[in-house]
Amino acid sequence: MAQPGDLPVVGMVGAGQLARMTHQAAIALGQPLRVLAADRSDAAALVTPGVQIGDYTSYDDLAAFAQGCDVVTFDHEHVPGEHIAALAAAGHEVAPSAAALRYAQDKRAMRERLGGLGLPVPRWSAVASADDVAAFGALVGWPMLLKAQTGGYDGRGVWMLERPDDATEVLASRIALIAEERVAMRRELAAVVARSPFGQAAAWPVVETVQDAGICVEVIAPAPGLPDEVAEDAECLALRIAGELGVVGVLAVELFDTDRGLVINELAMRPHNSAHWTIEGARTSQFEQHLRAVLDYPLGDPHLTAPAVVMANVLGGPDGGIGIDERLHHLMARWPDVKVHLYGKASRPGRKIGHVTALGDDVDVVRARARAAADWLRYAQEPALARAV
Amino acid sequence: MAQPGDLPVVGMVGAGQLARMTHQAAIALGQPLRVLAADRSDAAALVTPGVQIGDYTSYDDLAAFAQGCDVVTFDHEHVPGEHIAALAAAGHEVAPSAAALRYAQDKRAMRERLGGLGLPVPRWSAVASADDVAAFGALVGWPMLLKAQTGGYDGRGVWMLERPDDATEVLASRIALIAEERVAMRRELAAVVARSPFGQAAAWPVVETVQDAGICVEVIAPAPGLPDEVAEDAECLALRIAGELGVVGVLAVELFDTDRGLVINELAMRPHNSAHWTIEGARTSQFEQHLRAVLDYPLGDPHLTAPAVVMANVLGGPDGGIGIDERLHHLMARWPDVKVHLYGKASRPGRKIGHVTALGDDVDVVRARARAAADWLRYAQEPALARAV
Repeated sequence: MAQPGDLPVVGMVGAGQLARMTHQAAIALGQPLRVLAADRSDAAALVTPGVQIGDYTSYDDLAAFAQGCDVVTFDHEHVPGEHIAALAAAGHEVAPSAAALRYAQDKRAMRERLGGLGLPVPRWSAVASADDVAAFGALVGWPMLLKAQTGGYDGRGVWMLERPDDATEVLASRIALIAEERVAMRRELAAVVARSPFGQAAAWPVVETVQDAGICVEVIAPAPGLPDEVAEDAECLALRIAGELGVVGVLAVELFDTDRGLVINELAMRPHNSAHWTIEGARTSQFEQHLRAVLDYPLGDPHLTAPAVVMANVLGGPDGGIGIDERLHHLMARWPDVKVHLYGKASRPGRKIGHVTALGDDVDVVRARARAAADWLRYAQEPALARAV
Repeated sequence: MAQPGDLPVVGMVGAGQLARMTHQAAIALGQPLRVLAADRSDAAALVTPGVQIGDYTSYDDLAAFAQGCDVVTFDHEHVPGEHIAALAAAGHEVAPSAAALRYAQDKRAMRERLGGLGLPVPRWSAVASADDVAAFGALVGWPMLLKAQTGGYDGRGVWMLERPDDATEVLASRIALIAEERVAMRRELAAVVARSPFGQAAAWPVVETVQDAGICVEVIAPAPGLPDEVAEDAECLALRIAGELGVVGVLAVELFDTDRGLVINELAMRPHNSAHWTIEGARTSQFEQHLRAVLDYPLGDPHLTAPAVVMANVLGGPDGGIGIDERLHHLMARWPDVKVHLYGKASRPGRKIGHVTALGDDVDVVRARARAAADWLRYAQEPALARAV
């Protein structure tokens, strides 16, 4: 049999928790993940020996990193598209391509492209002035949203406007903006799929995502009470987008569930928070699947391993209180079946520092357990009390 | 909340596949595993940045390694007991202790101790001469076994004797030996448990282990057709041994299933090949459980995640043929639900270089899939043909 060196090497630009969890999956496939990290203390840089320190906005750093990799992929959307295109032109395998990734980087380009395909997106418009904003608001009604065309995440780069004057400060910043209607929705969903260069694709069950102040706090798999035909629509939508845009790797499609059907909110082309539950909850995790896809290996089985799976993000709590070691001790005693994932990140109030996953037969029970365990890590208090903190 | 640095650090002496898979579990708990490796190319040293190169038989190397760790544990039994005792005397946390580990290091001490507790061990005797061997053979019958008192594993240090003369060469080596009856058995089982310093213990379901030439090739969880009372006996036996010997961490008890009941074969006090299936097949893997135990955290839920789970070891095949990358590609296409674990080790005929795990409802189907996938990685041929190679 061949030597281990014969296995292809994946390099991931960015070394946050997504790269950290991808490294866990890479180990099983016989290799260490290489990461381009900003700092030795980045979540993934703490756990893999394959670390290069560099700046993902520097083409030279990216090219030096790509030199040791058979394929380069990303744990975030912030690498300049022209650098990605230049890496590919220089002969490096890059997945997803600059052409595909553009639609996860640029909200305007995404809406234009998906709208052009006849897919359901909210009403939107590029805006540059107070008059533009007022005119769009008159069309779609208030409140409405302003979004930075590029660079936003976790609620950053999104502003809710109650009236035209609320736009003044954002407009003064002179960043490229789009305005968007506020969609009346029942809840948010996510359809996550993976696609290989060969064109094979696989879809995980559609999930419900629960947000708090623009940050995902809970993911419920499968989405409770979702009619089969809507779930199928969502999966087909995500698979169609993956195919039309030529995505390679994981594609997460964030959706609004509305009275008039599904509406596309955002795209991400990398492992995504809405599929962390797949580590224990699906036969193939999104991290393993992303590696398989970018390596052009056949994709793994995406089926659920339990009837109900709930992931809850662990956010940094108020300063002070007992340490993480003691919190973990109590969590393990109280919920011996809940799976803990800590990212090795310093805690700041509201920062994502880990997640927990619970599995079982009854979604309400599973959800309560996941919620309580995550709240315990955040507040070190019982959930009912924690809510009052 | 506390900083990541507040989490206790586990150091593992030895950097083989057991440390490699323990590192995967440590990442989820918020930390990198530190390993004392013989070489940078050791399986675990390839995937963690926390590597110290050193000699596990050198007290100075062990003490330097222990300096940076909150607790020191082991991925093999070969660290001299006096060094382990000295580390503890110097104030380092070490788990398991030298006093407990002795019974996994020394087959004679183990048999004396367990026999003294009234637990079922094969008939055995210390032997030093041809006369000793002949006398023991006359008592228990032929064939019988000679075993090195210390240092054996995977069939090494074990000799089957058909007649007294077969002992001549082994006796000439002057290593300390015991003779043991050859137990007439139906099959081999393993009862794997974990115990924390606090005294909490948890047992995984009893498994059947299938050996080939002294090497474990398959593990079937739970052991098919095992009567409930026998399974309970085996679990109680393992829990009693863990308690009596003061084991901290994982304890694997290898058992013979015989007409006269269970008979204890060997002990291991570390993650063990007979529980690799727990990574996907149990709510808490043996690697996470070992970390929880040595850190004196509460133990995790050991329940099965599927009705039938089968692990098959991947052994190095004959030299030549297609590379591991291509083998992996075919395996993934053919068995998209089978989980692959490669250890990053160079292949040599018969060497354990990885394992695969299959899960499902029907043990026969699951077993056939695991067997076929492992054989494919070894031989790059369909199983029926592979057998003929």
